[in-house]
Amino acid sequence: MTSLGEVFLWELLGTAVLTLMGCGVVANVTLSKSLGVGGGWLLVNFGWGFAVFAGASIAEPSGAHINPAVTIGMAIYGEIPWSQVPVYFIAQIIGGTLGAVLCWAAYKLQFDTTEAPADTRGIFCTGPTVPNAPWNLVTEIIGTFVLVFWIITNPPATPGDGGVPDFGNAALGYAAVAFIVIGIGNSLGGPTGYAINPARDLGPRIAYAILPIRGKGSPEWGYSWIPIVGPMVGGALAALFALALPISS
Amino acid sequence: MTSLGEVFLWELLGTAVLTLMGCGVVANVTLSKSLGVGGGWLLVNFGWGFAVFAGASIAEPSGAHINPAVTIGMAIYGEIPWSQVPVYFIAQIIGGTLGAVLCWAAYKLQFDTTEAPADTRGIFCTGPTVPNAPWNLVTEIIGTFVLVFWIITNPPATPGDGGVPDFGNAALGYAAVAFIVIGIGNSLGGPTGYAINPARDLGPRIAYAILPIRGKGSPEWGYSWIPIVGPMVGGALAALFALALPISS
Amino acid sequence: MTSLGEVFLWELLGTAVLTLMGCGVVANVTLSKSLGVGGGWLLVNFGWGFAVFAGASIAEPSGAHINPAVTIGMAIYGEIPWSQVPVYFIAQIIGGTLGAVLCWAAYKLQFDTTEAPADTRGIFCTGPTVPNAPWNLVTEIIGTFVLVFWIITNPPATPGDGGVPDFGNAALGYAAVAFIVIGIGNSLGGPTGYAINPARDLGPRIAYAILPIRGKGSPEWGYSWIPIVGPMVGGALAALFALALPISS
Amino acid sequence: MTSLGEVFLWELLGTAVLTLMGCGVVANVTLSKSLGVGGGWLLVNFGWGFAVFAGASIAEPSGAHINPAVTIGMAIYGEIPWSQVPVYFIAQIIGGTLGAVLCWAAYKLQFDTTEAPADTRGIFCTGPTVPNAPWNLVTEIIGTFVLVFWIITNPPATPGDGGVPDFGNAALGYAAVAFIVIGIGNSLGGPTGYAINPARDLGPRIAYAILPIRGKGSPEWGYSWIPIVGPMVGGALAALFALALPISS
Repeated sequence: MTSLGEVFLWELLGTAVLTLMGCGVVANVTLSKSLGVGGGWLLVNFGWGFAVFAGASIAEPSGAHINPAVTIGMAIYGEIPWSQVPVYFIAQIIGGTLGAVLCWAAYKLQFDTTEAPADTRGIFCTGPTVPNAPWNLVTEIIGTFVLVFWIITNPPATPGDGGVPDFGNAALGYAAVAFIVIGIGNSLGGPTGYAINPARDLGPRIAYAILPIRGKGSPEWGYSWIPIVGPMVGGALAALFALALPISS
Repeated sequence: MTSLGEVFLWELLGTAVLTLMGCGVVANVTLSKSLGVGGGWLLVNFGWGFAVFAGASIAEPSGAHINPAVTIGMAIYGEIPWSQVPVYFIAQIIGGTLGAVLCWAAYKLQFDTTEAPADTRGIFCTGPTVPNAPWNLVTEIIGTFVLVFWIITNPPATPGDGGVPDFGNAALGYAAVAFIVIGIGNSLGGPTGYAINPARDLGPRIAYAILPIRGKGSPEWGYSWIPIVGPMVGGALAALFALALPISS
Repeated sequence: MTSLGEVFLWELLGTAVLTLMGCGVVANVTLSKSLGVGGGWLLVNFGWGFAVFAGASIAEPSGAHINPAVTIGMAIYGEIPWSQVPVYFIAQIIGGTLGAVLCWAAYKLQFDTTEAPADTRGIFCTGPTVPNAPWNLVTEIIGTFVLVFWIITNPPATPGDGGVPDFGNAALGYAAVAFIVIGIGNSLGGPTGYAINPARDLGPRIAYAILPIRGKGSPEWGYSWIPIVGPMVGGALAALFALALPISS
Repeated sequence: MTSLGEVFLWELLGTAVLTLMGCGVVANVTLSKSLGVGGGWLLVNFGWGFAVFAGASIAEPSGAHINPAVTIGMAIYGEIPWSQVPVYFIAQIIGGTLGAVLCWAAYKLQFDTTEAPADTRGIFCTGPTVPNAPWNLVTEIIGTFVLVFWIITNPPATPGDGGVPDFGNAALGYAAVAFIVIGIGNSLGGPTGYAINPARDLGPRIAYAILPIRGKGSPEWGYSWIPIVGPMVGGALAALFALALPISS
């Protein structure tokens, strides 16, 4: 069993890299003095997908959750003990906040010079194109269900198992989950910006509230519970559904 | 041999994920209040390709067909018994319909607010840019022939075979078929929108006919036989052609 | 040693799939009634890259050359006997022509309805943005040198070797060469449209000259020797350079 | 231990391919008579990412650094002896210069005919959208920290280790680092154009200063220390940070 210290360390680092790179790509397409400004939805999705790739391959020692919705699913499915769940959550939220602060540092000059400073919230946290709590929840639940159900039915190979060697680079296995995240962004990200991860949304929203960003807008706390509750419900439903299926172990 | 229950379960789930994500990316680029609106053909193809990646890796226990044209090819090629074929077909069509309904739920608010509601059929099912039954059939036959011939000549590795271990994540093997589907979309999708899968077209078309979509247009049943017959002929021809070749087993 | 019959069969099939899909993506972005019209250079490069992925994984039994410049390099490097070289060349050119004919069939209606029929040559064969024989040759030589030198220094694993098992799907190994081709297209394709393969250019050019395409332009035979000579020189130089290096086998 | 001759040879070749292809994609999107002109940020990032893929898989015998910031990190982390470091650096800078010269040769006609010849510096070397030495350094330090920390925590598998076989194509393992570089470009490249590699910037800058490019601008030597110092600091910090962590070997 992974120690609590390892869980804390690697989940914090992995989630920090996730939001550093994920918020980074939105900064790049949003801020008017960035080289990627106006770069489009596919660029955003490859940005977030490869952010998951980087964060998950770094967080391998702790199981590469970097997402409370994955953690709750794994606890329900019996992959990790419930006693570790709070440590995962705390590390993920701290990491998510820290990564967003680093993103702001990397784009400091672009935040200072952008032409529409009130629009910077979207760099940090998600929001709906059509606000409506029940249907926004449905969208987040469906997206996170796909993510967590896929992870449960496609577990990473365990080195040391018979017939399960590493290959060229063990990290490449995380390309699979990156492709799933890019796919969810391409396909299910249109209505709410696909949080599908409470730490990815709450952490950067805290950073946005705290950071001295020039001319910043509101962190929209009124919406902030949806990208927490939706993904947690979606992850839990995926685990319960998988438990009900005759999956051979 | 895979049991009929397993075939039904996993084909239904895999095809549902396929059309949820595949129709989702078209919804994202089509509906005016989606974040990916106007996102372009490469985004659509990565959307469908990673939808195949997700659906096929989930449907691994049943052989990951999620496509009646693959099933008919596999039956002709002798990979599955003919007695299982009807179960594959039924599960795929139910799954294809279910996935499209979930896509509609995820984009409910965007369907309600889009500026061109009569154009929503293209989110669910394919149509030709130049209607002409014989040549539209030719396009679908060629595209599906490439898909099924590639699958037959590049079978997934069987865990447990000598020298065929899993690796970082077994799911990554399905990236190969995803790249083929992205390639077919890039290259052969221009004339008819590349159904290359009767369940991907018929299931969502049924959903479009049934769902209470605001201001929806016709499901165009008159065209619906082409994305069924074309892919089935293409898949069957690919299997017959492969049988005629000196392929070492 | 692979038999001459196998070489002929698989090189012909693999090269046919290569030009069917490769010419297909250019048809898709060029013809005014295609869904991918105006799709951009990255779409074109992913189209050609995944065309190589499909063609090479199909042509695995013959060594997956599907390119006379690779064949000449492999012969010089000692990987195949010189006596087989003419069979490779003939199969590749026949296959390249056949694939282009199939591409035309898939896009027949779009060829008949396009608004600029004289521009269709670019769907089949390459041309320079600035005509100048010596420098156009330099561009093709450099691009093909990178391709063939990479192939020689990164050979596919041989099943049956110790420590070289297949994995999830053996075809995935060809993703590596697909990424190289996408990279060459992204980076070195700007001046001449990156033939880097005489069969990819000559075969479709023959098809263009023969096919009854509405309002077609000239096949520009005057340029046709450059995408033959340039790639052959580049492939040969790469093999000679690799022979001069202390590469451990 | 790798010999000094091998280090020199393969680092030079790998870095040359890196800057040939990397500068090439920027030439393609910049020069007005290139086929990829105006191709966008995602095309640029896939171009540089697959340039790293090509260069690193070629430079495998020397450890595939092709970047002084990786070399300094590996020396600090104890992976290579300090005595080899100067040979790595010299080979990388010579290779980086050579690759840029080859890029210029491939695009010679496009350099001669471009409509804005004073803008060609960006093809060779990086520059900030908002000049400010301390914050430009921060951006380069963060980007390079992610790259080198990821490489240290995700080492390539060593053939011959138990349970670490090659697979379809050993080169595919380098796709992992290519995805990281694409991700850094997508996410952290907006402010300074992501040198994250002193040889990638200094080598082509030397080439730009020397080459007879029509109407060229200044090589901006005043900025040139930032893409050297920033990446070296970022790589060193990543190694020191990794040394401080309880990473099981």
